Amino acid sequence: MRIVQYGLGSIGCGIARHILGLPGYRLVGAIDIDPQKIGRDIGEVLGFERRLGAFVSGDASVLKKAKAEFVLHSTASHLKTIRPQLIDSIKSGCSVISTCEELVYPYDGNRKITEEIDRLAKRKGVAVLGIGVNPGFVMDALPLILTSVCQDVKNVKVTRIVDASRRRLPLQKKIGAGISVSEFEEGVSAGTIGHVGLRESARMIADALGWKLDGIAEDIEPVVARKGVQTQFLKVGEGMVAGIKQTVRCMVDGEEVILLELQMRVDAEDPHDSVSIDGNPPVDTIIRGGIHGDSATVAVVINAIPRVLASKPGLITVRDLPALSCTRNLRRRG
Amino acid sequence: MRIVQYGLGSIGCGIARHILGLPGYRLVGAIDIDPQKIGRDIGEVLGFERRLGAFVSGDASVLKKAKAEFVLHSTASHLKTIRPQLIDSIKSGCSVISTCEELVYPYDGNRKITEEIDRLAKRKGVAVLGIGVNPGFVMDALPLILTSVCQDVKNVKVTRIVDASRRRLPLQKKIGAGISVSEFEEGVSAGTIGHVGLRESARMIADALGWKLDGIAEDIEPVVARKGVQTQFLKVGEGMVAGIKQTVRCMVDGEEVILLELQMRVDAEDPHDSVSIDGNPPVDTIIRGGIHGDSATVAVVINAIPRVLASKPGLITVRDLPALSCTRNLRRRG
Repeated sequence: MRIVQYGLGSIGCGIARHILGLPGYRLVGAIDIDPQKIGRDIGEVLGFERRLGAFVSGDASVLKKAKAEFVLHSTASHLKTIRPQLIDSIKSGCSVISTCEELVYPYDGNRKITEEIDRLAKRKGVAVLGIGVNPGFVMDALPLILTSVCQDVKNVKVTRIVDASRRRLPLQKKIGAGISVSEFEEGVSAGTIGHVGLRESARMIADALGWKLDGIAEDIEPVVARKGVQTQFLKVGEGMVAGIKQTVRCMVDGEEVILLELQMRVDAEDPHDSVSIDGNPPVDTIIRGGIHGDSATVAVVINAIPRVLASKPGLITVRDLPALSCTRNLRRRG
Repeated sequence: MRIVQYGLGSIGCGIARHILGLPGYRLVGAIDIDPQKIGRDIGEVLGFERRLGAFVSGDASVLKKAKAEFVLHSTASHLKTIRPQLIDSIKSGCSVISTCEELVYPYDGNRKITEEIDRLAKRKGVAVLGIGVNPGFVMDALPLILTSVCQDVKNVKVTRIVDASRRRLPLQKKIGAGISVSEFEEGVSAGTIGHVGLRESARMIADALGWKLDGIAEDIEPVVARKGVQTQFLKVGEGMVAGIKQTVRCMVDGEEVILLELQMRVDAEDPHDSVSIDGNPPVDTIIRGGIHGDSATVAVVINAIPRVLASKPGLITVRDLPALSCTRNLRRRG
């Protein structure tokens, strides 16, 4: 299958590298806005010795030229930003899997865009899916499947504590590591600090469980370093920001039913993901060490390809698909 | 929807009780072989004050008489035993969800029966699903969805340690609690001791991950009590059997790729389920306390109903369905 990688940031490059190791898939082009990458061989941009004979384009015209059948998309978190990119991809007859956080469950606002995308995808006979680890797995798909063993559910609580010290620089910046608390507050107001996706996860859980929410309350606060931390990229002094604590709370009839808490910090001592379902029976789950955000996002995008190919056309979510699993060995067997 | 409960053992009664609390579903009959139950009002058999005006029948003729649309089935672990019951249900035009362990993934042998069931279900336009907690969730569906965040998977290991001291008597008997080691060995040979389902889970994992297994090696051994244990139902002396340790190991090209271990014992000190995926990234999951076998089996059967109603006809497995979640609130909202 002829694939174009749309976006060659950290995640996009990870996806492209992984695709190159899999039989049955062929990377026939890539798209990026970085002038340093445009025009170069994709193999070179990915840091391989080997040239691919396929190049980085600055615009979507490559989709038709390269006869692309599928777009793997990883450029931005907000649906408004990626709307024209999705439209170009769909109009070229490509199904799309995107890591755009808002696309994972785009039904909290964005109604006009989602209807447009859905209509266009149906007309062109392609499917469009947003997926990732958070949102897309840890805080929504995983808790939901855990509720399948419950006769009823009173409350869903997910906590994700990420050790950001070993993650890439853009992530360390996104959580404000190293800056002051007042700079952090300014970043939150400006929208440069904070993670997108908790609202989407909460909405997916609520819809799947049939809960009509009173509302979604979101909170972002800095985690202040109690002692100095040095990462590969930056230094955090005592009293400066070590990371972020972001929560979403949802109520039904005045009772809290969903609490999603994300901590990403360079001083995390016990990184893990936990999913607690207060139900009958209760389900109390811990993923020790947590699921690695970057490599797992690459994985889940690739693993979703066969399901998207087999899906009905239109804008779909993980709720519409048979549960995913790792497909690497399947591909190996052709 | 008009439902008949096929089998009024412990799980079957649990399913029937739960159905009665849900809007949109109506229990119009039940089938059981127990002469003590046949002819009595279902409400009475379930231990309710209230009569339902629907009765326990000794045979499947009630399906047509009561105009049943759906059968919830919970009678036995082996496909051969339940084959005529499934055929009667399908011929009456009912879709079926069954807790029959072998039906959860009936592709390890049983080819003739599965083809017969599939063909008949397709002809009658109904779907037939086997589901449960083990097999059906802890050792197959859950590990598989956890592999969806892996770029590749080397090995899947699941351990389930169940505190059998708080479970029902038939389960305590099935694991040999209280008998001698030699009686245990006789029970294993006679097929009265041991849990059905590990092979099915292993086969489901292997098929989903594209692993061609060298074979499936199964082992059952007694766990001997180091000190006396008293349960609600029986007494286990020191040196007698406290429970069972059952494993399935699978190899691909001489390397172990799947290890499923089930311990059910009346002296379990740290009951839990653990799922470890050795992959990139690794996923190391613990469900503290474990998932309660009986109440969760009731739950997963009920929660599968909407998915089965929306499914294509034929013999299906959880691999064919969009991931399940708890549906109780959905039903409440009608």
